[in-house]
Amino acid sequence: MKRICIGLIGFGTVGTGVVRTLQENGHVIERRLGQKLFLKRIVDLDLERDRGVRLQDVILSRDPLDVIADPEISIVVELIGGEEPARSIILEAMDNGKHVVTANKALLASRGNEIFEKASKKGVEICFEGSVCGGIPVIRAIKEGLAANRILSMKGIVNGTSNFILTEMTKGGRDFRDALAQAQLLGYAEADPTLDVEGIDAAHKLAILIALAYGTKIHFGEIFVEGISHIERTDIEFGMELGYKIKLLAMSRWHDGCIEARVHPALVPVGSPMSTVDGVYNALEIVGDAVGSTFFYGFGAGMMPTASAVVGDIMDLARDLSKGISGRVPPLGHPWESLEDLPIKPMEDVVTNYYLRFTAVDKPGVLSAISGVLAKHDISILSVVQKGRRGEPGVPIVMMTHEAREGSVRKALREIETLPVVVGKTQLLRIEDESLRESSK
Amino acid sequence: MKRICIGLIGFGTVGTGVVRTLQENGHVIERRLGQKLFLKRIVDLDLERDRGVRLQDVILSRDPLDVIADPEISIVVELIGGEEPARSIILEAMDNGKHVVTANKALLASRGNEIFEKASKKGVEICFEGSVCGGIPVIRAIKEGLAANRILSMKGIVNGTSNFILTEMTKGGRDFRDALAQAQLLGYAEADPTLDVEGIDAAHKLAILIALAYGTKIHFGEIFVEGISHIERTDIEFGMELGYKIKLLAMSRWHDGCIEARVHPALVPVGSPMSTVDGVYNALEIVGDAVGSTFFYGFGAGMMPTASAVVGDIMDLARDLSKGISGRVPPLGHPWESLEDLPIKPMEDVVTNYYLRFTAVDKPGVLSAISGVLAKHDISILSVVQKGRRGEPGVPIVMMTHEAREGSVRKALREIETLPVVVGKTQLLRIEDESLRESSK
Repeated sequence: MKRICIGLIGFGTVGTGVVRTLQENGHVIERRLGQKLFLKRIVDLDLERDRGVRLQDVILSRDPLDVIADPEISIVVELIGGEEPARSIILEAMDNGKHVVTANKALLASRGNEIFEKASKKGVEICFEGSVCGGIPVIRAIKEGLAANRILSMKGIVNGTSNFILTEMTKGGRDFRDALAQAQLLGYAEADPTLDVEGIDAAHKLAILIALAYGTKIHFGEIFVEGISHIERTDIEFGMELGYKIKLLAMSRWHDGCIEARVHPALVPVGSPMSTVDGVYNALEIVGDAVGSTFFYGFGAGMMPTASAVVGDIMDLARDLSKGISGRVPPLGHPWESLEDLPIKPMEDVVTNYYLRFTAVDKPGVLSAISGVLAKHDISILSVVQKGRRGEPGVPIVMMTHEAREGSVRKALREIETLPVVVGKTQLLRIEDESLRESSK
Repeated sequence: MKRICIGLIGFGTVGTGVVRTLQENGHVIERRLGQKLFLKRIVDLDLERDRGVRLQDVILSRDPLDVIADPEISIVVELIGGEEPARSIILEAMDNGKHVVTANKALLASRGNEIFEKASKKGVEICFEGSVCGGIPVIRAIKEGLAANRILSMKGIVNGTSNFILTEMTKGGRDFRDALAQAQLLGYAEADPTLDVEGIDAAHKLAILIALAYGTKIHFGEIFVEGISHIERTDIEFGMELGYKIKLLAMSRWHDGCIEARVHPALVPVGSPMSTVDGVYNALEIVGDAVGSTFFYGFGAGMMPTASAVVGDIMDLARDLSKGISGRVPPLGHPWESLEDLPIKPMEDVVTNYYLRFTAVDKPGVLSAISGVLAKHDISILSVVQKGRRGEPGVPIVMMTHEAREGSVRKALREIETLPVVVGKTQLLRIEDESLRESSK
């Protein structure tokens, strides 16, 4: 049997995990496949650093072309991350008839359509299980396991860094800055944490999930994104008092051809499966019309969990190669030609429940002034918590609302912020609690 | 393109769900596959009952041969359940070159090896995602998504009926008989509930999971099985007091070529993901050496969840058929020839933590007599709860042990039961709490 040769471009953390997995589990992999995988080449700029893995029979070099141009290599694993040169490398590899495995969510979210179209034209495959939820096989679940379903909604904690920070704020009573510093100390957050804490990484992943679930081209730019840097300890405390934990959620919902898609912090009910997902864990709830609610949970990143996904993809390609086929399951689970351009629902039209924390002067009539404006905008109040805090310039008033339109809530808040009794900006958070949704009853 | 024809044998609950899914989600399925699936024939003994689905262009009949012998049909869906005639139908269908989809865990657990060998010899496929955990794609996860891992352990709630009964006993304060009657009333339990409440159905599923995870032939008979009919309300109450919920678990653990495999009620820590799985939900934790702990959760049975899995399997086969291949992923994720005959660890050699509830006369020296026997057998005590209950012939003494060998515990109990101060049989339950395991520290 012809040996299946792999070229790895990017010998960083995940790349090292892939080499370790191929070596340490070589026997397990070979027994499953009925054949050996052969890692022929590794390309990286840094060829000196000791990664703690033995490299026998592997050709190391610095030029990606060494992999892309090697006629014996059929699978190219791109693990350098970021947009360029990853994009050019992948496109060129495909031009040379190579199949590609990547975990590069930023690239797929921004340039996925170009890459998937190229794969379709060249008759090659691209696998990217490692790009969302690390080692948890959620991409495969949507593309194959749940393929008989219309996906009604998805809701997930898909960014470990921000989940770690929120968990530290909740359990450790830290504020955002402290919790971020702790995450940076432990290596969970980058020096510039913007991608993680501002929800952008989560939106990259949601863009990929949506394309898979609904058979639409990738529309990253249209997803509503809000991060967690404005979350204060007082919100975490009020949330707990009301029976909720604050989590950064990536969500989508099917509305007959129009897709709701948003990433933002949200209050989730204590005791729900999602509320038990702490630290750097990830989770994704997928609701299908036949299967009902399914829930997937595990490590969302890290050397070995991501390597588990990447090597799983390599094995998938090896199975196709040994049968002499390609394109059995298209990258987005739908043939390229049948992908649609489904619209994303404007955020103003999204309907959900709201947590509003006003800061007001401690005077009679404040509550009536605020609730009057809300009523005018058709927003009805579910509950109110008001607490006097001595020595502070304003007192917090927290309201939970019945379901309301985002656009109306924003308009009402703009009006409320002009009231002389209201000081400072109002905190707006969304509540994701199925038991409060009138529309689902 | 040639149309892909399906024959369905067994038009009961799940069969009806399959027909509904193929009809209602026909557009979703066709978009994913790039081709139509055509349900050509349905076989059932009862052709009169109205199942609430329209049947246009479907040929109904009573003889399985009508499907098996139809040269246009390439996929046979067996949903009659039980051992015979399901076994003969599947074998004959394979002899005729048909691929098979089934959800028949009892058959696969008892005759799987014969069926998988036949599939290998005839070059046909057999898919059975619906046989374990209903619509949650756990079989696919083990065969493909986590294929790069050595599976270190699996732990699951895989029988919805017994989980419903235990949930009723825990939340509703019912005893076993009452909770069972409630389950029967709601249609969750059969008139003869033995398969479910005695752990046999869970063991069927565990046998399948083990074969997939470790590449071994199916060894159903060697799995240790204990049901939940001996669980008393007092055990549920003591468990809660100690911080545990009682769940019927199916478990396996890898010991360097030897497999621990057992189904029994166990105490799981309150607050762990497994403890949140209530009612008819199922869940499976799979721990791989690369991926770490992954957790899958959803409906474990029922018309539509199981249909979701069955139609997912049909789509998988359709993808292979349209590429003209077969056997891309073998039924157990390993080529038939490479399957091993791995031994199951004898239950006496299993090491875990124990909950022991003794019933003793309320006299001085009882605790010392019992703990003396335990010490003699090398079983050390982690905690003791003793409660006087007026008006009862014996008082309960509950002990939690450090890790101990099952064989030693059983020997000690036999000796303790001969003590004159001990009245009645001792309740032995196992505690599955990773934080108590010395061996994992």
